Amino acid sequence: MNVQEIMNSNDFKQCVSFHGHVCPGVSIGYKAAKAGMAWLKENRSEDEEIIAIVETNACSADAVQVLTGCTFGKGNFIHKDYGKMVLTLLSRNSGKGVRVAVKAGTSGLAPEHMELIRKMIDGKLTDTEQEQFQELHLQKSMSILETPDQELFTIRETSMELPQKARIEPSEPCSRCKEPVMKSKLKDVDGQMVCQDCCN
Amino acid sequence: MNVQEIMNSNDFKQCVSFHGHVCPGVSIGYKAAKAGMAWLKENRSEDEEIIAIVETNACSADAVQVLTGCTFGKGNFIHKDYGKMVLTLLSRNSGKGVRVAVKAGTSGLAPEHMELIRKMIDGKLTDTEQEQFQELHLQKSMSILETPDQELFTIRETSMELPQKARIEPSEPCSRCKEPVMKSKLKDVDGQMVCQDCCN
Repeated sequence: MNVQEIMNSNDFKQCVSFHGHVCPGVSIGYKAAKAGMAWLKENRSEDEEIIAIVETNACSADAVQVLTGCTFGKGNFIHKDYGKMVLTLLSRNSGKGVRVAVKAGTSGLAPEHMELIRKMIDGKLTDTEQEQFQELHLQKSMSILETPDQELFTIRETSMELPQKARIEPSEPCSRCKEPVMKSKLKDVDGQMVCQDCCN
Repeated sequence: MNVQEIMNSNDFKQCVSFHGHVCPGVSIGYKAAKAGMAWLKENRSEDEEIIAIVETNACSADAVQVLTGCTFGKGNFIHKDYGKMVLTLLSRNSGKGVRVAVKAGTSGLAPEHMELIRKMIDGKLTDTEQEQFQELHLQKSMSILETPDQELFTIRETSMELPQKARIEPSEPCSRCKEPVMKSKLKDVDGQMVCQDCCN
């Protein structure tokens, strides 16, 4: 697919709709998740069939959630806080795993682009700079989408012990605030079971 | 809206599509996020206008991501691992905040339902038990959706210091694996900057 076909595809639109906007991070996450899922030959995970391990909590992780079905709330989405754009996908069906790692120099932003982002976060963009930022942001997003996977990523088979499935356990009331709490998260304080919020 | 109207609504369908299936957790997250956003009188967060703090990483968190636009990859989604179905939403626009906490006894599952979930996780459900599980799961989901907010939740105004906006920083190569890494995540090992994966 060329860049326009990708941007018009339901998959990409769903990533953008969930994340809230088009950006280079969502574009790299889209490409990485697509490449990983194609390698595994799997469909989106309805339950916990696939496990995703992301090494960044940046924008790319949202495209991973949408396309793989490995979501924060489902117990099959693991974050290692390494600050790396690396996605590992493991399949409970086949036992296979794949590691998709961004190559150096392919997803970085130009210095003028970084500077505009810093100003935007501080709320200091002029109207002209806002337009420049939008233009650079879209250009970079499109450039990533049209780059072939083999130029963007190192993709290789990997093996890793499968994590346990998500636990579901009944809640019990905190003896102080009386709000319901997963039993294993209560702490014994002088013989009373107290939630962590009340401990703080 | 009655339960059937909710289940037919785009909002609920998007939650289910993202999460992968209907379940009591998604239903409680849907109700909590809707109640919190209505209290704040805000629209879904395209960027970082709203901040969500969830106190559980269970299913409900996925409905929160979909409905509030506070997503794992966007820097406006904070997880406190307290094991409580409590959602706090803060608005950068108005400076207001709301805390939505599930009341005791409203979202818990019956013992026979819990037992079937345990068997399912262990892959030990018979076909008949699978049907029973599906039926109980759907019944509980629908029961939550039709319960009025004031019976399900304690909803109150709250104030909290707003967290900083997400940082964006350039990557630098790890001196061992050469993969790009957010600079602040590199560790100095004998004078060489090394990623945490290579440190392990």
